[in-house]
Amino acid sequence: MEKQQLEALLKEMSLEEKVGQLFQIIGYYYVEEGKKFITGPDSGLNLSDENGALTGSVLGLQGAELSKKIQKEYMEHQPHHIPLLFMMDVIHGMKTIFPAPLAQAATFEPELTKEGSEIAAKEATAAGLHVAFSPMADLVRDPRWGRVVESFGEDPYLSSCFVKAQVEGFQGSDMKAPGKICACVKHFAGYGGAEAGRDYNTVSMDSHTFQEFYLKGYQAGIDAGAGMVMTSFNTIDGIPASTNHHLMRDILRGELGFDGVLISDFAAIKETIAHGYSENGEKAAENALRAGVDIDMMTTTYLDHVADLIQKGVLKEELLDESVMRILELKNRLGLFENPYKDADEEKEKELFLCQEHRKTARKAAVRSFVLLKNDGILPVDTEKKIAFIGPYTDRKEMLSSWAITGDAKDSVTIREAAEEVFASDRTVYLQGCPVLTPGFGTAQLRLEVEEEPSEEECRQMKEKALKAAAEADLVIMPLGEHFKESGEAASKANIEIPEIQLELLEEVVRVNPNVAVVLFNGRPLDLRKVSRLAKAILEVWLPGTEGGHAIIDVLTGKINPSGKLPMSFPYCVGQVPVYYNAYSTGRSDFKGCTDHFRSRYLDIPNEPLYPFGYGLSYTEFEISAPELTEDTLSADGSLEASVTVTNKGTRQGTETLQLYIQDVFASVVRPVKELKGFRKVTLEPGESRRETFRIDETMLRFLRGDGTVGSEPGTFRVWIGNSSVGKEFEEFTLL
Amino acid sequence: MEKQQLEALLKEMSLEEKVGQLFQIIGYYYVEEGKKFITGPDSGLNLSDENGALTGSVLGLQGAELSKKIQKEYMEHQPHHIPLLFMMDVIHGMKTIFPAPLAQAATFEPELTKEGSEIAAKEATAAGLHVAFSPMADLVRDPRWGRVVESFGEDPYLSSCFVKAQVEGFQGSDMKAPGKICACVKHFAGYGGAEAGRDYNTVSMDSHTFQEFYLKGYQAGIDAGAGMVMTSFNTIDGIPASTNHHLMRDILRGELGFDGVLISDFAAIKETIAHGYSENGEKAAENALRAGVDIDMMTTTYLDHVADLIQKGVLKEELLDESVMRILELKNRLGLFENPYKDADEEKEKELFLCQEHRKTARKAAVRSFVLLKNDGILPVDTEKKIAFIGPYTDRKEMLSSWAITGDAKDSVTIREAAEEVFASDRTVYLQGCPVLTPGFGTAQLRLEVEEEPSEEECRQMKEKALKAAAEADLVIMPLGEHFKESGEAASKANIEIPEIQLELLEEVVRVNPNVAVVLFNGRPLDLRKVSRLAKAILEVWLPGTEGGHAIIDVLTGKINPSGKLPMSFPYCVGQVPVYYNAYSTGRSDFKGCTDHFRSRYLDIPNEPLYPFGYGLSYTEFEISAPELTEDTLSADGSLEASVTVTNKGTRQGTETLQLYIQDVFASVVRPVKELKGFRKVTLEPGESRRETFRIDETMLRFLRGDGTVGSEPGTFRVWIGNSSVGKEFEEFTLL
Repeated sequence: MEKQQLEALLKEMSLEEKVGQLFQIIGYYYVEEGKKFITGPDSGLNLSDENGALTGSVLGLQGAELSKKIQKEYMEHQPHHIPLLFMMDVIHGMKTIFPAPLAQAATFEPELTKEGSEIAAKEATAAGLHVAFSPMADLVRDPRWGRVVESFGEDPYLSSCFVKAQVEGFQGSDMKAPGKICACVKHFAGYGGAEAGRDYNTVSMDSHTFQEFYLKGYQAGIDAGAGMVMTSFNTIDGIPASTNHHLMRDILRGELGFDGVLISDFAAIKETIAHGYSENGEKAAENALRAGVDIDMMTTTYLDHVADLIQKGVLKEELLDESVMRILELKNRLGLFENPYKDADEEKEKELFLCQEHRKTARKAAVRSFVLLKNDGILPVDTEKKIAFIGPYTDRKEMLSSWAITGDAKDSVTIREAAEEVFASDRTVYLQGCPVLTPGFGTAQLRLEVEEEPSEEECRQMKEKALKAAAEADLVIMPLGEHFKESGEAASKANIEIPEIQLELLEEVVRVNPNVAVVLFNGRPLDLRKVSRLAKAILEVWLPGTEGGHAIIDVLTGKINPSGKLPMSFPYCVGQVPVYYNAYSTGRSDFKGCTDHFRSRYLDIPNEPLYPFGYGLSYTEFEISAPELTEDTLSADGSLEASVTVTNKGTRQGTETLQLYIQDVFASVVRPVKELKGFRKVTLEPGESRRETFRIDETMLRFLRGDGTVGSEPGTFRVWIGNSSVGKEFEEFTLL
Repeated sequence: MEKQQLEALLKEMSLEEKVGQLFQIIGYYYVEEGKKFITGPDSGLNLSDENGALTGSVLGLQGAELSKKIQKEYMEHQPHHIPLLFMMDVIHGMKTIFPAPLAQAATFEPELTKEGSEIAAKEATAAGLHVAFSPMADLVRDPRWGRVVESFGEDPYLSSCFVKAQVEGFQGSDMKAPGKICACVKHFAGYGGAEAGRDYNTVSMDSHTFQEFYLKGYQAGIDAGAGMVMTSFNTIDGIPASTNHHLMRDILRGELGFDGVLISDFAAIKETIAHGYSENGEKAAENALRAGVDIDMMTTTYLDHVADLIQKGVLKEELLDESVMRILELKNRLGLFENPYKDADEEKEKELFLCQEHRKTARKAAVRSFVLLKNDGILPVDTEKKIAFIGPYTDRKEMLSSWAITGDAKDSVTIREAAEEVFASDRTVYLQGCPVLTPGFGTAQLRLEVEEEPSEEECRQMKEKALKAAAEADLVIMPLGEHFKESGEAASKANIEIPEIQLELLEEVVRVNPNVAVVLFNGRPLDLRKVSRLAKAILEVWLPGTEGGHAIIDVLTGKINPSGKLPMSFPYCVGQVPVYYNAYSTGRSDFKGCTDHFRSRYLDIPNEPLYPFGYGLSYTEFEISAPELTEDTLSADGSLEASVTVTNKGTRQGTETLQLYIQDVFASVVRPVKELKGFRKVTLEPGESRRETFRIDETMLRFLRGDGTVGSEPGTFRVWIGNSSVGKEFEEFTLL
């Protein structure tokens, strides 16, 4: 449809019809015996048939047949036959579930995320969806916050690369095209900064940090053309995001240049009342629409008040029209006026869902996301040995993530299932050893949602069997970790160790057989002090998705050499958080061998995390030479090159991730001690050496300066190239 | 001296002489075999005789005889006979040491702090001092930060009352008067917000929180007339405080109206180089002087560069003159031009230091600072019973604080010494049980500073004796806690439990005798889960000062009924920090019985601290009626009264602390769930009842509004009156 046609359509719409476009209804409204996908406090909607007849979009409803049926019936009743938008949380896969976003970031390969997002988009659109509520561009620094699993980690540059990749994978160059879906960048803004890591809590940070660190990911998604943005639950400078005029009008639409559809997070407009900001629903509607929030997800706040507010003259109809037009434009970008069902197709569903090609890509993505944290020579596993798999993840399908609501755990491949394809059955045993969660753990709500707890006696028997098997084995592989419901939304934790019952199992197993390799499942950085003391090897596998089992066996057996790197620091302990590599310089930094008492450090723990950002081992060993620069000065319009020689010193092929870090040594504001500015995967045969070069130019050195403008400043810069964020040797150049 | 005379003097001074006024030298420069009071990285000063001849002030030097000698010699060489200023860290007492500031705040009696500060000022000025580097007005929320011990806690109102009391106690209405000393409010600004509780680390918060919470304490000190302010080490919005023009010129001198002398913290000007802000010493000097920092503590940054910068025309001499004039004015306010020795007097030292009257006041302050956290009926102690005192603080004099550098631990009264005055020797035993610190604990620097570690065998023997005595006693009093070097500057900790070796001792003692009362020494809120599970009673005594032992026995025996209240929340565990009572409302607050999954909470711990702000028990029990309001509306120029009836339901006289909290239910920015607005101590005989009334007017309801102005907003307010920050019953009124 042409813009003019949309404008003509808008002119024809009644006030009620327009307001309807701004309302997003929950899917089960349309489904007689539908399953609830409620992701927030139930708002106790009390809808009439007319409300449903005019709503502009629907949340959490999938399936080609169902969506087509609803679209057809809806359009028949909609006065201008404007199609409904179908939206859903498609986060890391639709039916074929890829590794959780945090795990994807560990690949340091955004192109894999693009590939996975293309597959997710194909499956999702076949099921009738038009918008996926992803990527989450929130920067994270606090592992207590359960939603770090849905993020791309602590670094704005790395995170931005993945946000961009996901938007491009979803949308392609044209959302109309078959198999393409609209991306929704969330949660604007700063949602990842929840104080004390408690979800939905206050966010407080200085505006410099907000702009330099937290806004970058959203900007990347907007620059990549994301059709939608979602608001966050938190306040910015004391005002809830969904009613924050300055944040949405000046920053999002102004500075960041976003012109798409802005949707509230679940009930977030109404919740500005609970915040003590909007005095009632009418005020909430007024505040949110003034701020330019186009769609009210899941509450009737707009539906109940916007028409009234316009009729009373409080709001101008132009404000409503502006939002309606953005929604119509999105529907048009998706081609829904021509083809309201878009790609919904029962045959395609059958063909695409969990097909071999998709599973293969999911397996590859999972393999690449695994991070080898420790290896005292016991990995990879010799398949000829007697191996005991002991731990609650040994034969567990629930390794998707709490946000993989479109996927089904029963479709996933367990470690045992994958191992049985490779290991001889007479030399392997598979035992659970203990439940995932310590009996009694968690809130009442959590315990309702997880499996039944074994009795004390059952636990005793499980452990007894496990210890016997461990004692008899040459090697013990222990798949341990957090329950998938321990991370994700509303899943904050104060203790970030693996469940106590599993730690006890590990301790006892190690006592009877010290040759233990832990395979670690988790949705957040953990305190791994005890695990790393006890186990000879740790393979971090996050929440690996549908093909998790296969991918784990691929790496354990050495069929594939692990190459993942941490996208977020693993703290020494929870008392150290937040800890992140790109901290600002202080006036009293600690350093090795420093004997001054008055330095920035703790009395009882080191300042460094246990495993730093960018860290990850391989089955082979790489040597990286000190960086060399082609020039020691850089002009504003020129460039220089920084090179290293990387050598595979081991006996296996392997892939190393070169990471370029730069520090601006003096500036008009205090700058980070280093910042990631580039990365590259290098695959080398045993003994092979390669020269690798990064180009550095002035645009990479820009930042928010003391005077509030963005640009670089002349002076000294330091350059590191290494295989983690910890590197000693640097070279300096001067920006002229 | 008249202002005109000061101006005339300034005109006569050479450039070099002026710059000298801006330099503060460390005391040992003047003392041949002096002891170092270095409180920061040694700046490697390399001073000539001339430098010393012109310095305007001296740091960390005490003693009437010495200071008079130095002043005399100095003035003979100073071209215009301008006297030196003697400054020192007099934080909570000079020789008679009062409880640490955090403990003082627990009294909820600022008048006691005023009284203590008057005594400290008398002793300090007798020793030749002119300026005390106190009060610390930094708001604190993170118990990992060791310097919380020097603060007045988490509440801006409570903290402000104590800051004011200390300034008034130090300065009186006229600093010139005998026994009065100039106060120095520190550390401007926001130093208490160190990220991850690590001292000197980055501070980041939104500007609304900065103004509404963090600036309040400094404002109180400035409004009370403090002669000096000290800069902080941290950055504000990316710029180190000591070179932050906006912070110092616009906020401190402008908005807060400070016109006194601004001094850098120890080496803080020079450390802006390490921050990566000032490129070198010259730039640091330029930046700091432009920001209006008058005195450079402990480095030669000003000394080396300011004259040059003026001669080169980079800085105008007027800028220097402005700072010199402020310093001359302070010297004049102190009467030093007429009497350069002020109150320095060897006879007075003898008369005042640790005199009975001072000790008595210190004892009273200590008693009132103790907080009874738990009491299952075993306190007060029956002196006729067989009592075992077991724990490393049983006979320990080191209970002052790491900032009590002018005091001497040998002057303090231990628990044992005080107990022996009261308890029959044949029914009491005193045993250490274990060392304070777990052998091997802490940094190399810390371990150099603390006592020798007992061997494993010695520890075993200590414990064995303790357990035997515990088993034979009717009741065990266990004086446990942190080493005094575990709190204070550069004493951050990630684990906030009491030392492991003491927890073990406690566990084992409880096993042989469950009648255990813990007397808890510490400089920060601790994770007390284990202690509160094991002990039947906990008496929080902080770092109680010189008269600690007497005060503790006064309370243990019931001679005095404890009445202290927590000035800072004691978190459930370190994974919960920061946790404070006056948090902003969220959109998804948790509440008791709430069954929604998607609420702001943790999966594994409650949201509430273990012991909340304002909490503290008594040996008697108080009942407080629901609050009643005289009016349900309040006009801008009117007032209303909120009343409760408080009744002593127990059998002992006791003192309760009534606390008035108010919530602004809706506002143009999100507001705290409640805020302390008043408090009052009420002493009642058994069975006695009293009606207590708080007056509420519009000025108490003002805040920084959404439009950046300060004022109240009409609407609903809630009022609680209770004996802690946790209260259910409230009344509402409407501000018209």
